[in-house]
Amino acid sequence: MAPQLDAYFSQVDSLSEHFINRLREAVAIPSVSAEDERRPDVVKMGEWLGSQLKSLGAEVELRPLGKQPGKEHLDLPPVVLARYGRDAKKRTILVYGHYDVQPALPEDGWATDPFKLTVDDKGRMYGRGSTDDKGPVLGWVNAIEAHQKAGIDFPVNLLMCFEGMEEYGSEGLDDLIEAEAKKYFADADAVCISDNYWLGTEKPCLTYGLRGCIYYSIEVSGPGQDLHSGVFGGTAHEPMTDLVKLMGTLVDVDGTIRVPGLNELVAPLTDKEKALYKDIAFTMDNLYESLGSTTGIHADKERTLMGRWRFPSLSLHGVEGAFSAPGAKTVIPAKVIGKFSIRIVPDMEIDEVNKLVIKYLDEQFAKLGSKNSYKTVVQHAGKWWVASPAHWNFTAAGKAVERVWGVKPDLTREGGSIPVTLTFEQATGKNVLLLPMGSSTDAAHSINEKLDRRNYVEGIKLLGAYLHYVAEEPMVEQ
Amino acid sequence: MAPQLDAYFSQVDSLSEHFINRLREAVAIPSVSAEDERRPDVVKMGEWLGSQLKSLGAEVELRPLGKQPGKEHLDLPPVVLARYGRDAKKRTILVYGHYDVQPALPEDGWATDPFKLTVDDKGRMYGRGSTDDKGPVLGWVNAIEAHQKAGIDFPVNLLMCFEGMEEYGSEGLDDLIEAEAKKYFADADAVCISDNYWLGTEKPCLTYGLRGCIYYSIEVSGPGQDLHSGVFGGTAHEPMTDLVKLMGTLVDVDGTIRVPGLNELVAPLTDKEKALYKDIAFTMDNLYESLGSTTGIHADKERTLMGRWRFPSLSLHGVEGAFSAPGAKTVIPAKVIGKFSIRIVPDMEIDEVNKLVIKYLDEQFAKLGSKNSYKTVVQHAGKWWVASPAHWNFTAAGKAVERVWGVKPDLTREGGSIPVTLTFEQATGKNVLLLPMGSSTDAAHSINEKLDRRNYVEGIKLLGAYLHYVAEEPMVEQ
Ligand SMILES: [Zn+2]
Ligand SMILES: [Zn+2]
Ligand SMILES: [Zn+2]
Ligand SMILES: [Zn+2]
Repeated sequence: MAPQLDAYFSQVDSLSEHFINRLREAVAIPSVSAEDERRPDVVKMGEWLGSQLKSLGAEVELRPLGKQPGKEHLDLPPVVLARYGRDAKKRTILVYGHYDVQPALPEDGWATDPFKLTVDDKGRMYGRGSTDDKGPVLGWVNAIEAHQKAGIDFPVNLLMCFEGMEEYGSEGLDDLIEAEAKKYFADADAVCISDNYWLGTEKPCLTYGLRGCIYYSIEVSGPGQDLHSGVFGGTAHEPMTDLVKLMGTLVDVDGTIRVPGLNELVAPLTDKEKALYKDIAFTMDNLYESLGSTTGIHADKERTLMGRWRFPSLSLHGVEGAFSAPGAKTVIPAKVIGKFSIRIVPDMEIDEVNKLVIKYLDEQFAKLGSKNSYKTVVQHAGKWWVASPAHWNFTAAGKAVERVWGVKPDLTREGGSIPVTLTFEQATGKNVLLLPMGSSTDAAHSINEKLDRRNYVEGIKLLGAYLHYVAEEPMVEQ
Repeated sequence: MAPQLDAYFSQVDSLSEHFINRLREAVAIPSVSAEDERRPDVVKMGEWLGSQLKSLGAEVELRPLGKQPGKEHLDLPPVVLARYGRDAKKRTILVYGHYDVQPALPEDGWATDPFKLTVDDKGRMYGRGSTDDKGPVLGWVNAIEAHQKAGIDFPVNLLMCFEGMEEYGSEGLDDLIEAEAKKYFADADAVCISDNYWLGTEKPCLTYGLRGCIYYSIEVSGPGQDLHSGVFGGTAHEPMTDLVKLMGTLVDVDGTIRVPGLNELVAPLTDKEKALYKDIAFTMDNLYESLGSTTGIHADKERTLMGRWRFPSLSLHGVEGAFSAPGAKTVIPAKVIGKFSIRIVPDMEIDEVNKLVIKYLDEQFAKLGSKNSYKTVVQHAGKWWVASPAHWNFTAAGKAVERVWGVKPDLTREGGSIPVTLTFEQATGKNVLLLPMGSSTDAAHSINEKLDRRNYVEGIKLLGAYLHYVAEEPMVEQ
């Protein structure tokens, strides 16, 4: 029997100004994790969040994570661990979010004070953290409150894990998740993360896949110090010459990766998967709008979405150690470091990819016949993640979306990575669902970040509805 | 009859402490032309130099050059124009030097105060400007004084042009030289510039050639703004991919320039020219020492010197607009600008080179088949310069070197450019000689710049002796 949600929904509607004020309070705390001097505000934000949960009757722990690696004078902000409900007859859902935010300087071009929630006449609520990720985090808090005020039994036991360092590498979080997988998180039946975005602005989605990312450096060095090209040009092997040749062998202008064997690691495209792309709400104009140009590689939306989600890509990011300022400088740089990364997808294993990439570059360098020194280094590596959208966690969420928004959600992947997703899946062994609240125009890491009032209020309904559907969804793959 | 110089030489020796004190006074004025807040010191240095010359009886003018282009609140420092002697029966020699210096910050690693001349027990005189170019400029002043004190008739009319903006692009100087070529400089019979260095540390040289330099930018742009490689990698043409491919087609690792037609512009190597290289005091170990490595391209010194002096070279300097910091950033840069320059030699004409380079890059970009926008731009261009070392100006200087140092000087070129050399040659139509005072280890633009006491004192003798020899050298090519 479908859950009875009307009373919950109208309670959310009548509490909506209260919920917006709660978001306003949260945005006013500038919890920027990347800025040392804001650390007290990050901690304050964690404490504020904990007290909100406590006042609603949740059991709350602020877990210290110790000192920040490399900055031993700084305490990491605590992870807010919370539990709402201990009913053994109910399912337990673990949710994750983060209460820290990206830096925001008014002089970067904000139209309003970034730490003052400002709602315009179209219902756009501007403020740093509004959509990433304070709005979604408060979505869970608000869902609890609306149930209480409406007198509706909460459908699940809710475990919450809210961190304060997501925008600065989630320092210390992986260890905590692994340590608590069989303890604090032991009874979780499924995981839900609300920290990404719709593909567009009108249609909700459920996200079941992310690409991984391996970041490489190519180091080439020769002379003992930077040289003057007038004096040494034509007499010495120049590291920059070698480097651009190596970088130029990695990828074609149409994005084809030229490392032999790499494409063979990619899971073949099945007809069934191919069919999924046709109906997704996305157009080439959406791409061009977000690119700010029409310099897309592929002509059709299906291949474009596949290029973003399910095929690997290789991007050249830049060169460290060479001349990079405006103007003209006649330097021969002594040591240059080329940076590139590969987005990886099923079934590319990190070790295999690294072996192929390094072997290829080693061979290319040997072919050059340069006297310079050369080395390719892996800077960091993160695996891809793909869940089954047929899992009951997803089908329940799909029903909740249909109930709140009146449409079936798109099933999407993302091209970027949210490493904590894979950590939760591997540590708990449970299905992880990405259930976004905000839309593609929210400008999460840019100036003028916003969350639409509609997405916030309907999003609170959605999170609550999801908990009702997931509480009773048959535990089978469909 | 060879000039009688013994009395002059012994006068220089007995005045040597006085001359070192004069250099000490000059070094103490921090005339850094690149630093706006030092501009009063640059002006002070010009005035000090003018007063030194005036007290020796020279006619001196401090010529204002107006405001600094782009920094209209700053006056350019004056050019010190001076004349010593107006005897129509004597030849007139025009000399050039500069009284401004490179920046020098103690925290860059100076072992001593850069603006306090410090003489060590090996006679190395450390201080900013000691060798570049205050020592040589004062060489001319000291030569006048030593002649006066020794009671020797000065052998020529000496015209002097000392500027205060050489280390910052010689703003305004070209216009002045062209305007005065048929006025202040009208009676010059030859030009001498002492503002470069010996090839090594033991053997003096006369320099008769410089390479020119053309500096290019390759601009590639596509997206409207920087993109996240997770979201857009694999869906959009990336400017950086195109750029490294273009840069990679310009030059081979052994320095061979791959622009078709370019090498055909280079004057063929004659047997006579080839024979000049064998005797030059230079070894591969000299190269390796200055490189700080053994990553030289050529195995022998002759080809190495030709690579530096008489063949073109192409160096890739860097990329503007891409990620250039340490660490990892997963950006797809929206617009990248690759910088490279070509050192040009006889008979490469700037226009022809530009035409070949731009045509080649245009073709290479078209071949790529990218949707990005592309443009190659010439940032600046300076012609090469080669004088005839058989000119009487050079043969006279050669005799002076032999008299002072007891060896025939090496005839050298340089790989870099000293643009004012060509300006003087073209404006006056007279032969220009580069007659260095300092040695290859003087570290002109680095920390711990120095001039050896020996090079200073013998250099004063050399400049005076040169004036005697050039006063009576038969005006024929030999
Ligand atoms: Zn986030
Ligand atoms: Zn974020
Ligand atoms: Zn100089
Ligand atoms: Zn200089």
